[in-house]
Amino acid sequence: MGYFITFEGIEGCGKTTQIRMLAERLKAAGRRVTLTREPGGCAIADKIRGILLDADNQAMLPQAELLLYAAARAQHVGEVVKPALDEGGVVLCDRFTDATIAYQSNGRGLGRETVDTLNNLACGDVRPDLTVLIDCDPVLGLERARRRIDASSGPREERFELEALAFHQRVREGYLALAAGEPHRFLTVNGSDPVELVAAAITRQVEARLGEQYHAVR
Amino acid sequence: MGYFITFEGIEGCGKTTQIRMLAERLKAAGRRVTLTREPGGCAIADKIRGILLDADNQAMLPQAELLLYAAARAQHVGEVVKPALDEGGVVLCDRFTDATIAYQSNGRGLGRETVDTLNNLACGDVRPDLTVLIDCDPVLGLERARRRIDASSGPREERFELEALAFHQRVREGYLALAAGEPHRFLTVNGSDPVELVAAAITRQVEARLGEQYHAVR
Repeated sequence: MGYFITFEGIEGCGKTTQIRMLAERLKAAGRRVTLTREPGGCAIADKIRGILLDADNQAMLPQAELLLYAAARAQHVGEVVKPALDEGGVVLCDRFTDATIAYQSNGRGLGRETVDTLNNLACGDVRPDLTVLIDCDPVLGLERARRRIDASSGPREERFELEALAFHQRVREGYLALAAGEPHRFLTVNGSDPVELVAAAITRQVEARLGEQYHAVR
Repeated sequence: MGYFITFEGIEGCGKTTQIRMLAERLKAAGRRVTLTREPGGCAIADKIRGILLDADNQAMLPQAELLLYAAARAQHVGEVVKPALDEGGVVLCDRFTDATIAYQSNGRGLGRETVDTLNNLACGDVRPDLTVLIDCDPVLGLERARRRIDASSGPREERFELEALAFHQRVREGYLALAAGEPHRFLTVNGSDPVELVAAAITRQVEARLGEQYHAVR
């Protein structure tokens, strides 16, 4: 019986830093940890990621985008997430189903029912046990994300960073509404707080949850 | 008010030859013709095609495959098929929704309801007016397809050709069942007949249909 933790938030909120810090702490505590991300996380899903994030693909239609996310997720869940959970590990995933709701439904305006149908089709019975939402003002987040892109020599995965501020504001509001609707699943932290403070809040919560799970099993 | 004709059949049935011959005849008769294919037909969908048909991607899960077909179709219908039909043209498409039913539902065993949901999501209100099914024994078709692949210097798009014969037999049966269920939409021809004979049968039917449509509009 594994434990599945997803990290969510807009571009530049600090997800990647926090998920790496948590992975290190859990490994140091002797946990078996799988650190992965969406879209991507395995060879076929990484190829789909390449199409989704390529700034050249500005003509992508919202339905095609939604279906590509679902395709990448189906492959990633089946090939990586589910096997790791079945082996009893802790899986940390940078973005998951809530991102699709926030970006494609709140951001792009696709129907929530369609997004839910595709999330269910892609995930089967795999659901996050805990979702860490790193809330962040889009003005701050986009500034950080653009600095990172400018400093990177890798592929320019910036199709979303090129969206207008209003888009990112709708995404942020979508995330906050999801967190309000499922307070037990979500831990919301403030992405403009110092990194170590955010990390401490996340570690505390995760340790408490994993401890609970440990006692529930015994 | 355009007219949408799809061509279906297993690998090596002769679709590509027939669709090109029909396109030439319709163009010679002064029709505005768009000749396209799935998966693919536009830049983003062609990138998805590359993932779908790449023989390296043997680990692809059936759900991911289905979702990738739907993604490519959503982009292709929105960017190519619908605009061409809206302009009153004849659109000829090498494979479409019936291929997804035959390959992913009959071939892979995915639920028909799921396949229909994704086809509908990808197509909106675009439906084929006529579907030409080129029926063919898989033993003959696969032999032709393998000769073509061996002679080609392009990318090795052979993930489906590598499937077992039983898979292609299920696909063929799936196609025949679709044609039996919608006799008005389907024209079934015999892919082992001489090419010119098959072409004549297709041309006759298409001219009759387009004539009907012309009179119906007047």
